Amino acid sequence: MTYNVAILGASGYTGAELVRIIATHPNLRIAALSADRKAGMQMSDVFPHLRHLDLPTLCTIDEIDFDKIDLAFAALPHGLSQALVRDLPKNVKVVDLGADFRLRDPAAYEKWYGAPHVATDLQKEAVYGLTEFYRDDIKNARLVAGTGCNAATVQFALRPLISGGLIDLDDIICDLKNGISGAGRSLKENMLFAERSTDVMGYSQGGKHRHLGEFDQEFSLLAGRPVEIMFTPHLVPVNRGILASCYVRGDAQAIHAALVDQYKDEPFIMVLPFGAAPSMGNVTGSNYCHIGVVGDRKSGRAMVVSTLDNLNKGSSGQAVQNANLMLGLPETEGLLLAPVFP
Amino acid sequence: MTYNVAILGASGYTGAELVRIIATHPNLRIAALSADRKAGMQMSDVFPHLRHLDLPTLCTIDEIDFDKIDLAFAALPHGLSQALVRDLPKNVKVVDLGADFRLRDPAAYEKWYGAPHVATDLQKEAVYGLTEFYRDDIKNARLVAGTGCNAATVQFALRPLISGGLIDLDDIICDLKNGISGAGRSLKENMLFAERSTDVMGYSQGGKHRHLGEFDQEFSLLAGRPVEIMFTPHLVPVNRGILASCYVRGDAQAIHAALVDQYKDEPFIMVLPFGAAPSMGNVTGSNYCHIGVVGDRKSGRAMVVSTLDNLNKGSSGQAVQNANLMLGLPETEGLLLAPVFP
Amino acid sequence: MTYNVAILGASGYTGAELVRIIATHPNLRIAALSADRKAGMQMSDVFPHLRHLDLPTLCTIDEIDFDKIDLAFAALPHGLSQALVRDLPKNVKVVDLGADFRLRDPAAYEKWYGAPHVATDLQKEAVYGLTEFYRDDIKNARLVAGTGCNAATVQFALRPLISGGLIDLDDIICDLKNGISGAGRSLKENMLFAERSTDVMGYSQGGKHRHLGEFDQEFSLLAGRPVEIMFTPHLVPVNRGILASCYVRGDAQAIHAALVDQYKDEPFIMVLPFGAAPSMGNVTGSNYCHIGVVGDRKSGRAMVVSTLDNLNKGSSGQAVQNANLMLGLPETEGLLLAPVFP
Amino acid sequence: MTYNVAILGASGYTGAELVRIIATHPNLRIAALSADRKAGMQMSDVFPHLRHLDLPTLCTIDEIDFDKIDLAFAALPHGLSQALVRDLPKNVKVVDLGADFRLRDPAAYEKWYGAPHVATDLQKEAVYGLTEFYRDDIKNARLVAGTGCNAATVQFALRPLISGGLIDLDDIICDLKNGISGAGRSLKENMLFAERSTDVMGYSQGGKHRHLGEFDQEFSLLAGRPVEIMFTPHLVPVNRGILASCYVRGDAQAIHAALVDQYKDEPFIMVLPFGAAPSMGNVTGSNYCHIGVVGDRKSGRAMVVSTLDNLNKGSSGQAVQNANLMLGLPETEGLLLAPVFP
Repeated sequence: MTYNVAILGASGYTGAELVRIIATHPNLRIAALSADRKAGMQMSDVFPHLRHLDLPTLCTIDEIDFDKIDLAFAALPHGLSQALVRDLPKNVKVVDLGADFRLRDPAAYEKWYGAPHVATDLQKEAVYGLTEFYRDDIKNARLVAGTGCNAATVQFALRPLISGGLIDLDDIICDLKNGISGAGRSLKENMLFAERSTDVMGYSQGGKHRHLGEFDQEFSLLAGRPVEIMFTPHLVPVNRGILASCYVRGDAQAIHAALVDQYKDEPFIMVLPFGAAPSMGNVTGSNYCHIGVVGDRKSGRAMVVSTLDNLNKGSSGQAVQNANLMLGLPETEGLLLAPVFP
Repeated sequence: MTYNVAILGASGYTGAELVRIIATHPNLRIAALSADRKAGMQMSDVFPHLRHLDLPTLCTIDEIDFDKIDLAFAALPHGLSQALVRDLPKNVKVVDLGADFRLRDPAAYEKWYGAPHVATDLQKEAVYGLTEFYRDDIKNARLVAGTGCNAATVQFALRPLISGGLIDLDDIICDLKNGISGAGRSLKENMLFAERSTDVMGYSQGGKHRHLGEFDQEFSLLAGRPVEIMFTPHLVPVNRGILASCYVRGDAQAIHAALVDQYKDEPFIMVLPFGAAPSMGNVTGSNYCHIGVVGDRKSGRAMVVSTLDNLNKGSSGQAVQNANLMLGLPETEGLLLAPVFP
Repeated sequence: MTYNVAILGASGYTGAELVRIIATHPNLRIAALSADRKAGMQMSDVFPHLRHLDLPTLCTIDEIDFDKIDLAFAALPHGLSQALVRDLPKNVKVVDLGADFRLRDPAAYEKWYGAPHVATDLQKEAVYGLTEFYRDDIKNARLVAGTGCNAATVQFALRPLISGGLIDLDDIICDLKNGISGAGRSLKENMLFAERSTDVMGYSQGGKHRHLGEFDQEFSLLAGRPVEIMFTPHLVPVNRGILASCYVRGDAQAIHAALVDQYKDEPFIMVLPFGAAPSMGNVTGSNYCHIGVVGDRKSGRAMVVSTLDNLNKGSSGQAVQNANLMLGLPETEGLLLAPVFP
Repeated sequence: MTYNVAILGASGYTGAELVRIIATHPNLRIAALSADRKAGMQMSDVFPHLRHLDLPTLCTIDEIDFDKIDLAFAALPHGLSQALVRDLPKNVKVVDLGADFRLRDPAAYEKWYGAPHVATDLQKEAVYGLTEFYRDDIKNARLVAGTGCNAATVQFALRPLISGGLIDLDDIICDLKNGISGAGRSLKENMLFAERSTDVMGYSQGGKHRHLGEFDQEFSLLAGRPVEIMFTPHLVPVNRGILASCYVRGDAQAIHAALVDQYKDEPFIMVLPFGAAPSMGNVTGSNYCHIGVVGDRKSGRAMVVSTLDNLNKGSSGQAVQNANLMLGLPETEGLLLAPVFP
């Protein structure tokens, strides 16, 4: 069975990653690629690494015949998906890779994104796309909201600990090391090679990063009470990858056991032996997430480290995983590509 | 149809790349992995990025039951394959990724590798593994000698020009930019991160690089007279990739036309439009090779630029491509993974 | 006034950095360079970037005439300095860049370094080399123990907060991002370019890193009670630099004010405006340390970020700063080189 | 003696490098810093690595009182210097780091830069700033035209060979590997970290690069006949540095001897022993240039390799070296900073 998909916003890095994944997916066929400012160009001009593929010419969204599309991936800048998805024919399933439908509460959305949501009905309908925890809802969803890449990395580490009551909810500190591709392909002086290649710096420090909206929503829901973690991302000179060092209070062995138990049947989440911590470079280019737990010399403290590829498991891989579920395909279809090392 | 393969020397980068490729190959099954010094270890300890795969424990070569092996990939240090392949059961097909069988002439072998060959019969039998040019021989071969990674990159650029009589055979200068993984995983001070990460340097300059033996053999054979190119590799701070800038005398348009014609039906060799030159980063992690031709302001001079991933198309991807042919499988099976960018 | 200095262990990165700094220091003259295994070689063969300098040939330590040496920098592997310094003529001042004299307590030394100290008298005599806090003692010292590079980075951030009683002593979490040169020039597989260039990984997690010995000693002394921080370094693909993200409980504004006050007259410690966090790349190649304070959205929590160049302010620059004091020279002599960016 | 200098265009990388060098120059005082779009900002906001320096606020050029300026460094975009320098008071000496005065012939300027020159009188007056070859003229010049960074690198390798009649003038091929900072701080998609960090690509291939104008001018002048080299730069993922691999026909030993002879008394040009080739990383952050000569296996062919730091010896270091001469200061003043490695 082959399904026709459209990629809306195909000229960004997550768009390219969708194409890369779908290139060897046996059941998905790319029927349309949109990129408003680059409409009319060939994908091979925008992304020469995809030159070997026979792909549709980039077009505007208006030019797409959605009657022929089974599922659309929306990889658009934050804020643009709301109206767009609202106006799509209802037969088209949608996986949104942006932030527009991640927060269920209109007030929370406005707080973190600075403007009211224009499609609050859809906001309620959308299923949060963290596959391993919303699998059943995703299967039946018309609209799935892909998670933030940081949000995915940290939630894989912490959800089982919060729902299991294993850690102090008031003392969770997450220090992230983030590859540069997360900043996208837009032009910013501080994303130039010369600025980033020998530098490390934090950003959105002090509780300003928008992915905190997701953490607050999800962790509070899990805990049944408000939970506010500290969360600080740092740019490191690597293209792909997020490594989250989560400092928690709790019993390290119990934490490890809970993670092992949670993920023992998951195809993409690998929990390392107790005491081992994962490396970012071991998941590059793949849909895998590696998690490790290390106990501290001070009892009652532990470090949970989680790593994934922000463009893949953190975004486009997750999107395909969700699309597989929505289309009734095997969940792992097209996603078993091994990480690229070195 | 599933074939059982063994990877001899699985603890190096080309061994890991073979595993990565075969992980999604529908017809190959990894039945044995050898690594003499690391025998007894799990592959996931040697290469944690392969943790998700169910792989045999590393063993010594002696421990492998070759009766159950259809084809062996030998990814061993230069000089070790000769005796090993000589002693294998004759039913086992072999793709050698090392240098032992690349040169047909025992004298040439001794000149470039500093010791006499110990299996000169096999040396004669071995087919040179540049798939696009030795396809028919490879299909019927028991032993295929994988080419040098530099040798592949440059030959894709120059073979059609030499056989077509399009360039001056006495004035061919090839300046290569080489990713660091080509140096392998062995410990050398000048391969440390701190030494290489902000440096570029040439090596084996002045006609000392062993891949010159391959160039001399192949280009002289094509031309029907001795041909000796200038060839200088330079280390650049990138993991994977070779970009060869070949400076030749000839008509740029005719050169481009000859390359387009040669490769028009090849699945893995992409010739860019005239005047465009390829980028190393556009083939990373894949079995594709991109080639471009640019004419110089001085008529009668041209630059032919060729790029591929040294671990993949330059070594392990080429090896699987050849194995596919030797086993009667479709040539592209398992090799259509798109390049990883960014 | 010119002083003759010897560099013992000149073939490592800190040795090379000492030479680089002293090259434009008006009062220090390099009279001897030792490197046991490379004795007899020219420094320009070991470090070609120093080719323009007229330097002594590398020799063994035994070959040095210490009667002509005013001060020796010992940049030796941990454990070798103890006996060496013990046996030096007493007229020679010593700045030890290794770990042998950092811990005053023989039991603590044995705990963290796994062997008893062989010169416990000297251990007591040695002054801890964190210049900005031990300046007066250093001026009169014969033996100064250079601090660990991580130890310096974190202490600059936290000492004023601990001595000022501004933070919760039982909840200090320091997450460090470390350049690779800190691992030195010795051969380790996981320090190869191909292993490190696209990776981030923690190491010595869980309270195992030896610099914890220094933190325990210094912070407990300051606080007048035992203090044990959590401290986790992570390797990032940068040559030089440490960026310490310190998560503390306390009033962010008060913390910032204390740091501003502490360092207002220090030539090398720059405190950024409140709310700004420093970048590792802004101190590369220099003796400067940048510190910033950001308040969290949760009141009573703050992040103090400190960054310096591990080879310079974290090691060789600090050593020269201390040598200046010991020799009665202006403290900043030779150390005002501006950071190199980009 | 202290001279007041202005840096016009201080917000670019060469501007920052001028400030870095002058920071420890005993005779130059930065009296004014201009940056039109960033006028009013502090230099520490534009370049935080210069935070420790007490520098003038950025201003517009109009706001500078040139009566108080002895020498101005113009680090402006190509095309802007012409009118500016024309309108400066005649008492102000000028070192132009841009391209406006490099070509003496108005027709050549228009050919390579696409517009007529607006100050052809000054164009004639300007002295070409390749210090080691125009030293006497520079001492007496009011206006010195800094060379292109590629132009400097290659000329150091080839000038003595051309003037000495040692190489075939019709067969000179220069393949350059270029650090990214040469592209400046302006926003271009292909200069983003994610685009460049694992890539190598040529640019301005086929005789289109503007520095060819300088090569044509200088080499033809030296040879007394038209000389047109092939010259192709390639971007490599390094911040600083140019490594030029020059392929020539001539006697390698004679070539080496000529270079040794030419540079034996030069403080900044180091010729390596015959057969050794330099590494880019050994000159980073310095005003040194390393040159090596390797003979090929084919007699009559040689490779001359030259490397320098594009921002320093290739631009700002050269500018200070010329300023020293113009102001009657020792030529090496402020420029003896050793390269930064690793």
